[in-house]
Amino acid sequence: MSAKLPQPPYWAVIFSSQRTDGEQGYAAMADRMLRLAEVQPGYLGAESARDAAGFGITVSYWDSVEAIAAWRHYAEHLVAQKLGRDVWYQYFSLKVARVERAHESAGSAGA
Amino acid sequence: MSAKLPQPPYWAVIFSSQRTDGEQGYAAMADRMLRLAEVQPGYLGAESARDAAGFGITVSYWDSVEAIAAWRHYAEHLVAQKLGRDVWYQYFSLKVARVERAHESAGSAGA
Repeated sequence: MSAKLPQPPYWAVIFSSQRTDGEQGYAAMADRMLRLAEVQPGYLGAESARDAAGFGITVSYWDSVEAIAAWRHYAEHLVAQKLGRDVWYQYFSLKVARVERAHESAGSAGA
Repeated sequence: MSAKLPQPPYWAVIFSSQRTDGEQGYAAMADRMLRLAEVQPGYLGAESARDAAGFGITVSYWDSVEAIAAWRHYAEHLVAQKLGRDVWYQYFSLKVARVERAHESAGSAGA
């Protein structure tokens, strides 16, 4: 889930969510969405962590707000064809942010 | 780890890290840092998730870059007094981003 990112500025989508109980096809959906994101124009990378209680944060990085808008339109269409977010998430929040500065440790595998 | 956030714009610090093996006082340090952050001027909230493999993302939210700069200066001084980041993290990355848009699900407990 790491990626070599360019120098800022670039854009981040911060998606936080609390999973519902049960699998309900979630892993397959999440894997598919990631693979689709990776081939979108303007995609720079993503990182994701979910704890044992089902709270997770995924941050994806993009080269423009236009790339984010295109991806969100596409992703929402895909999700709407499936079960819908209510089945997978008790709640979620989504933020779009412009990354202004970035640094990493010397031993970093990227972000 | 949730908080009521104001309407954008505000600022986010995205801290991603891979933990080293072993505890080495990490939980106590992380708890202390969070409690100290919460009483800093300009602190708006934070959310955090770490997976079973030790990869984690913490996003803290602030009302200005000046608040972030003050907190980072303070936090780095505190960490420098302790073991140092190399003991706790195999690698980390830190990004400062300006949140431009935000929305959450109806059932959200905030972010």
